[in-house]
Parts: sequence; C-alpha cells; structure tokens
Amino acid sequence: MAHARIGIVTISDRATAGTYQDLSGPAIHETLDAFLKSEWEACYRLIPDERADIEATLRQLCDVDGCCLVLTTGGTGPAERDVTPEATAAVCEKLMPGFGEQMRAVSLRYVPTAILSRQTAGIRGRTLIVNLPGRPKSIRECLEAVFPAIPYCLDLLGGSYLEVDETVIKAFRPKG
Amino acid sequence: MAHARIGIVTISDRATAGTYQDLSGPAIHETLDAFLKSEWEACYRLIPDERADIEATLRQLCDVDGCCLVLTTGGTGPAERDVTPEATAAVCEKLMPGFGEQMRAVSLRYVPTAILSRQTAGIRGRTLIVNLPGRPKSIRECLEAVFPAIPYCLDLLGGSYLEVDETVIKAFRPKG
Amino acid sequence: MAHARIGIVTISDRATAGTYQDLSGPAIHETLDAFLKSEWEACYRLIPDERADIEATLRQLCDVDGCCLVLTTGGTGPAERDVTPEATAAVCEKLMPGFGEQMRAVSLRYVPTAILSRQTAGIRGRTLIVNLPGRPKSIRECLEAVFPAIPYCLDLLGGSYLEVDETVIKAFRPKG
Repeated sequence: MAHARIGIVTISDRATAGTYQDLSGPAIHETLDAFLKSEWEACYRLIPDERADIEATLRQLCDVDGCCLVLTTGGTGPAERDVTPEATAAVCEKLMPGFGEQMRAVSLRYVPTAILSRQTAGIRGRTLIVNLPGRPKSIRECLEAVFPAIPYCLDLLGGSYLEVDETVIKAFRPKG
Repeated sequence: MAHARIGIVTISDRATAGTYQDLSGPAIHETLDAFLKSEWEACYRLIPDERADIEATLRQLCDVDGCCLVLTTGGTGPAERDVTPEATAAVCEKLMPGFGEQMRAVSLRYVPTAILSRQTAGIRGRTLIVNLPGRPKSIRECLEAVFPAIPYCLDLLGGSYLEVDETVIKAFRPKG
Repeated sequence: MAHARIGIVTISDRATAGTYQDLSGPAIHETLDAFLKSEWEACYRLIPDERADIEATLRQLCDVDGCCLVLTTGGTGPAERDVTPEATAAVCEKLMPGFGEQMRAVSLRYVPTAILSRQTAGIRGRTLIVNLPGRPKSIRECLEAVFPAIPYCLDLLGGSYLEVDETVIKAFRPKG
C-alpha cells in the first residue's frame, strides 16, 4: 500500500517573501510525525495570501498529488489579506462546520480573540481540507482537538487508512 | 384545532433498498411520543440519499402536507452520498446555525467524531426543518438537546402550538 | 486623533412605528459607555425589519459615516420578518462565525431558546459589524462575551484604536 500523502500549506505573504522563516509548516509536520504510526509523506507548499494561488494549490494537492488530507496554516483572521476560508470553501463540495466550531471552542480556553479565527474545513473529492491557525503554538492545540476524528473521516471518504500512535493521541473509529 | 403534523424523513440508500430495516425513523417517532402531550400525526417518508428526492420530499411535507416540524435522519456525514444538509439549505429561506452547533456540542460529549456531522436546521415558510443524526442512539441525545427550544420556535413561525410532557422534557417559552 | 465612531442600529418594526420605545439601542450605548475609556461617538439608527433598509443603513454607517464598529439589535430570530443576519451577510466581504457561536453558547447558559438566535458578524471594508440580540438584558451578556476580542479585531482592520476600562472589561491584544 502506498504511503499516505498529506498536504501542508503555509499561507503567508511575509514567509513567501522571505521576511521571516515559516515556522508553522514545520510545526504541522512535527505534530503529524508525533501523531502518526503510518508511513506518510508531506507535500509542502509555501504561498502568499492570494485567493487564486490558494485555490490552485488546494486543487493540485487534492486532484493531482492525491493527498488524503490537506492542512493549511495562516490567512484565517479578519484582515484584508486573510482569504484562506473563502478559498477553501470555493474548492470544496462540502463544508464541515464542526471543525471550525471545535477549534475555536478549544482556542477560546487560551485567548478570547479565538472568536476572530474564521477557520473552516471541507471535502474535495476524497480529500479532507482543514484550516489551522497561523501561530505554531495554536497549531498543536487545534490538531489535538480535531485529529481524533480525522482517520475515521478519511475512512468514510475512501482515502488512506491512518494509524495513530495511541500513546500520543487517540483516533476514534465507531464500531459497525 | 387540527393535530400537529410532524414529518419524519429517513434518508438512507440501504434502508430504502431494504438492505436493512429503518430503525431511525421509529426512534424519532418514539421520542416524540415521549416528549409530546399534544396530539400529533407523523408524516413518515423513507428515501434514498439523492439530493433531488430529499428536496422534493421536504418541499412536499412543508407546502402540501402542512407539517409544522420536519425531522430528518441520515445523510449528514462527510461521505460522497451524504447530501442532507445541502438539500435542507436549498429548500430553506433561513438557516438556524444554533441547532447544528448545539447538537454537535452535545454529541461531542460522547464521541470525538461528532465534529464530522454536518447537521443543520432551517425555516421554510412556517416549517422548521431539523437534521438529526443517523444513529438511533444519537437521535434521542440530539432531540433532548434542541427540543426545549422547538415549541417556542413554532410559536414564532405561527405554526402549531405544541405542549410537552414536562416530566420528560421542558419546553421554554420566554414571557412577554 | 478623531473619535471612534460606532454605529448602533435598532432593527424593529414596532419601535420604528412608535408602538413601543426602543430600549435596546440605549442598552448598547450604556454598555459601550461602561466599557470604553476612549472617546467615542454613537451613530444611532432606528429602522424597520426590511432587508433593503438594513443593508442601506449598514453600508452608509461603514462607507460614509466611517464607523469602525456597527452593532445591530433585533431581527435575528426565526420569524418571517427577522432578516438581520441575511442583510448583514449581504453587505459583508467576510463572515466571522465565531461571534455568533460564542454569543449563542453564552446565551445558552441562561435560556435553551438561545439556539434560535441567528446572530452573525462580518467585515465590510475596515468595519466590523456584529448582530446583538433584541432583548436589552441579553445585549449586555453578549457584549461581555465578545467585546474582549473587538479592539484587537479593529487593530487588524486598521480601524480606530479602542481603549477599554480594564476595571469593567478586559481587551485582549496578543503580543507580537
């Protein structure tokens, strides 16, 4: 069986311009390494906060690269250049409102500004796309909150079968 | 005064094909029997996971059969055939995001995969339509969570006046 | 530096017709007076539950009057005349789902009918628009729940810098 491919998309004007180093993409990579027992391969992209670029990148990771899961970081706030949720919704056939609700609820335990996050998630074909926050520290918190549901979601989509390291995170697959 | 009519719509390819028995529709019926003191009449439908069928059924229950409330079960997950929320949104003039949020929040106490549910609710004319989960066990949990608000919602819509059995569930009607 | 301008929009057929006195607009005014240390100026409007009127009023407060924040009250329920969320969404470039989620979650501690509220929030240009509930008592509860995130949101939009009275409410601005 082929390795699972997982897209990691950092969406940031400044990191793309080299003004600062992307720490968020590596934070996602590291968290997935800790969570997953299955072999997996990262498809990493670093792109600016441009809606057309985000949509094209998501489409390619889903349709061409065959990622079962795509995780984005950045571009989910209220500022003018923050367009990740709109780009995500535009390429998805189905939206999954529970992911955004749950990530905001968890982030609210740390900061009241969590309500400013517009993170969403959705399905394109057999791929689950999830927007994570931009800050490395919040990425792990959000992944811990939603990852337990992700392997079963991919099962339902007919995607890769992901095994997690149960000493680090639990994956929930309902019986029957 | 005429009996309240309540639509119960099981949306399932397999139950429609007779591959298994529909337990979800009866679970809704039984829960409503326990909750309601008012006389009521069920308008029961069993249909496949086809968006056109779901939309036509919802329209008929609202516009022709005069249901004050329509409860669906099934088709709210992320899989390709799950299209109940899209069909519901398509026939509603108004969406009621609080229902889905609350049902997911309650289901999350039991299973982390509750975030995969895309349940929504909305208003068509004078009818409230609410998507319930597919599993009979979760149906009761979700109805207990949202039913306290339903009689007042129907009052605001000018629909049937529902009386509940207060020893089983409380209905909340703000004064004034 | 110019005073911050904040729009306060009461949306109510009955208050517009003079059938009862608008208590909700003044309740917002009073709460903001208690919260804000910055000088500010209210742009107050009282309009009926007409979608076209609501949209025109919101556009004017954002684009002409230069409000950094617009708070509406009324019209967020399920009844036929309740169209404030639709009007808000129509004039906003971005929706902020976390506001509605958080306000419903907080109101649910008081009344189960909080799930009937369809309150939303969004961004038009540099203005944050937030729907508050219609009842004066709930207005304060909801503002206490979401206001801590509002000054930072306006910073991100390049709007007015709001200072709050920290003995009454905390505003959260992440460092860096």
